[in-house]
Amino acid sequence: MITTFSNKDILYAASDYRKNLINSLTGFKSVSLIGSINSAGVTNLSPFSQIVHVGATPPLIGVLFRPNSVVRHTLENILDTGYFTINHFTTEYYIQAHHTSARWQGSEFEKCGFTPKYIDGIPAPFVAESPIQIGLELVERLDIKSNGTHFIVGEVKQILIDDKYISADGFIDLEKAGVVLSSGLDSYHTTNFLARLSYAKPDHTPKPI
Amino acid sequence: MITTFSNKDILYAASDYRKNLINSLTGFKSVSLIGSINSAGVTNLSPFSQIVHVGATPPLIGVLFRPNSVVRHTLENILDTGYFTINHFTTEYYIQAHHTSARWQGSEFEKCGFTPKYIDGIPAPFVAESPIQIGLELVERLDIKSNGTHFIVGEVKQILIDDKYISADGFIDLEKAGVVLSSGLDSYHTTNFLARLSYAKPDHTPKPI
Repeated sequence: MITTFSNKDILYAASDYRKNLINSLTGFKSVSLIGSINSAGVTNLSPFSQIVHVGATPPLIGVLFRPNSVVRHTLENILDTGYFTINHFTTEYYIQAHHTSARWQGSEFEKCGFTPKYIDGIPAPFVAESPIQIGLELVERLDIKSNGTHFIVGEVKQILIDDKYISADGFIDLEKAGVVLSSGLDSYHTTNFLARLSYAKPDHTPKPI
Repeated sequence: MITTFSNKDILYAASDYRKNLINSLTGFKSVSLIGSINSAGVTNLSPFSQIVHVGATPPLIGVLFRPNSVVRHTLENILDTGYFTINHFTTEYYIQAHHTSARWQGSEFEKCGFTPKYIDGIPAPFVAESPIQIGLELVERLDIKSNGTHFIVGEVKQILIDDKYISADGFIDLEKAGVVLSSGLDSYHTTNFLARLSYAKPDHTPKPI
């Protein structure tokens, strides 16, 4: 049976119910580990699922951060050092990846069994266990007035990826790489390929390519 | 073998290769149909995959739009009327949904076989064939200087969903609803559930809930 939630129904729902409902509402999403480091050299690793493609030329990626009212190591580190990494993970590591979201004392790399890896020119740590590793430099910060969240834009400086996952046309086969995705706050999934569809034109139905 | 792309490698790559690479780089993503209407009453329907959860209290969703340098009906309609809808779709409709991205003359609802549906208080059309329909009011627009894209924030005013997809704790079971996701510019996938994991704490490994 079709249920309707009005804006008031949502606001008057129990807090946990509302969080589960609204976090799963936008659909499936990527979930990746963001690596960062503070100026004292302490590394941080945390899962994020609000990551979007902003543009290809130049290559830009956006990440949405919760309000900076409590300690947010990842955001503070990015604003402090100007760099961060985004690292996808596979089924083999998704429980450890989820565990990085706990309130650890010290670095989540060591606590959760991930290996920091460094590349010249990017101070932030990559995750050695990740099949797709991205190094980014902070280029823009936008503050969302409606609820105090922050949209951080980074420019891609380095991509590290096994070439067997890259198609001839540049498409990265995330499914072949075993990349995990998420829904809501705590649900993890793998994928089944349906098709890549041809560029859409009015005169014919899109076909698998 | 591990391949490295530097920022220069990406910028010097062929345009289509770069677009495929960077669009698939951020991982799997939701893909939904955004419904809108202009002040003359002409409806528009278009697929978007840059949609993120912004907050639960109040319930806010963000959508990233390409630069407004060519005709962008969806963005213009939202800025004009202040409302839009986000509608997930299933495997049964993913080819038609992809087809809405062609340069149609007239409404994509009629051209691609979707049924517009209206609810009091929201002028934008919902997609009757969608298992999860969301009505939103525009609350904020942020302009990203780095590349001229626009981040639009909408507040959720109505959710329409079959109650069999909603768990007791508010979590929407997108997989049970058959919701399709995307990767890159043109790849579509369904999902396999791994687990929902318990809230992460330092003293024990997360468990399936």
